[in-house]
Amino acid sequence: MVVAPVPLGPDLHWDLDRLAAALADARLFVFCNPVNPTGIVHGHEELSALAELLDGTSTIVISDEAYSGLDYTGRPFTSAVSVDGLRERTVYCQTFSKSYAMTGWRVGYLWGPPPLIQAAARVHNTFNGSVNTFIQDAALVAVESCADDVARMRAAYEELGEIMRRELASIPGLTLSTPEGAFYQFPRYDLALPSVDVVAALRAHGVAVRPGSEFGARGEGHLRLSYAAGPRSIVEGVRRLAHGLAALR
Amino acid sequence: MVVAPVPLGPDLHWDLDRLAAALADARLFVFCNPVNPTGIVHGHEELSALAELLDGTSTIVISDEAYSGLDYTGRPFTSAVSVDGLRERTVYCQTFSKSYAMTGWRVGYLWGPPPLIQAAARVHNTFNGSVNTFIQDAALVAVESCADDVARMRAAYEELGEIMRRELASIPGLTLSTPEGAFYQFPRYDLALPSVDVVAALRAHGVAVRPGSEFGARGEGHLRLSYAAGPRSIVEGVRRLAHGLAALR
Repeated sequence: MVVAPVPLGPDLHWDLDRLAAALADARLFVFCNPVNPTGIVHGHEELSALAELLDGTSTIVISDEAYSGLDYTGRPFTSAVSVDGLRERTVYCQTFSKSYAMTGWRVGYLWGPPPLIQAAARVHNTFNGSVNTFIQDAALVAVESCADDVARMRAAYEELGEIMRRELASIPGLTLSTPEGAFYQFPRYDLALPSVDVVAALRAHGVAVRPGSEFGARGEGHLRLSYAAGPRSIVEGVRRLAHGLAALR
Repeated sequence: MVVAPVPLGPDLHWDLDRLAAALADARLFVFCNPVNPTGIVHGHEELSALAELLDGTSTIVISDEAYSGLDYTGRPFTSAVSVDGLRERTVYCQTFSKSYAMTGWRVGYLWGPPPLIQAAARVHNTFNGSVNTFIQDAALVAVESCADDVARMRAAYEELGEIMRRELASIPGLTLSTPEGAFYQFPRYDLALPSVDVVAALRAHGVAVRPGSEFGARGEGHLRLSYAAGPRSIVEGVRRLAHGLAALR
């Protein structure tokens, strides 16, 4: 198995020419939507373009839609499994960690063509076993009766994203991202240092962020900042980030 | 990797000559204690004999001691990791499913030499991830303050085993096992049928048991019956078993 990362376009959406070339002999195409770490949301048009590229192939698609409940575009979120030409070939991955903030509960699910799900279930049965039963009960309650909470949290995350953006705006040398979903800022910095070194230096200043290079070679020069936190933590975290970056100049 | 099952002696304990031959070039030796499905308990002498066989080798041992809290021998249970010559090479496996009856909670742990545990943790982090946090809290409570419950349950299982034995005694053609631990009867039957076929026939009579062949070729001709159930279920289960077996004659 050879993994071929496909560089994105300048707007961080798919570069369809590059994608077409990479898909020519691909057995499997894996993507996130909304994207972690860029926060990009692939909409209906983009997904339809993917379906067209895959037409006539037997390429399988894995669509990780963990952040689907956190879409700030104002348009309804489009799942890959609602798109003709993708539905039949897509394994849909979902978690209760994001929309329902049940991170520590460690529960999620797959949906897709029965032969693929049966194969995944066989591996799952061997390596993982079932999730404990009361967590399954709780997950069912979440799905059946927590839509209002999800909407409330989406609004809260959007506001927290704005707070983070406002606080970051005054830090020199940072180019902010414009997330359309999820809960991450993914700023580019202008220091001539690998992101793992920047992260280590920031840790010493009391703030934990992830290095962009962790998400692929093209992520180098970026930091991933989570705004799944309260406003005060965000303000304080950005203050420490500013100090840490200033010390590196 | 080649798996080499080692046939047991007539008393279902280890056949040390056969074991010595199989261990000669073994990289890993895996066993259960108490044993599922036979209910045998490997005591201190037997484990010391194993340590002697392994002396001077780099063979790793996996000791699955899931049923260690359910030992009816009257002697204190001996863990492999309390035996000199085994401790240094043994990965100890424990679960909360048996002694604490926390089966649906899906939680357990490993203990052993740091390099082996670190390697296991790397695989675990990739394939499994952590168990959810409140289950970890509950497991800690079990370990720290439920010793009396374990003792009470051990006494209860011992009694349930006696009830099952008494009920089974009147079924013709069954040779009962004498479990020293765990909660299984493992009777041999005298029908000329594979155990998977007997199990299927019994299912149609409303009783679920496991085929002996599932535990290795030498388990053929046996059934595994669990007595982790209430007295009434055991009596009713054995009644159905008797009907099912009679119908096969």
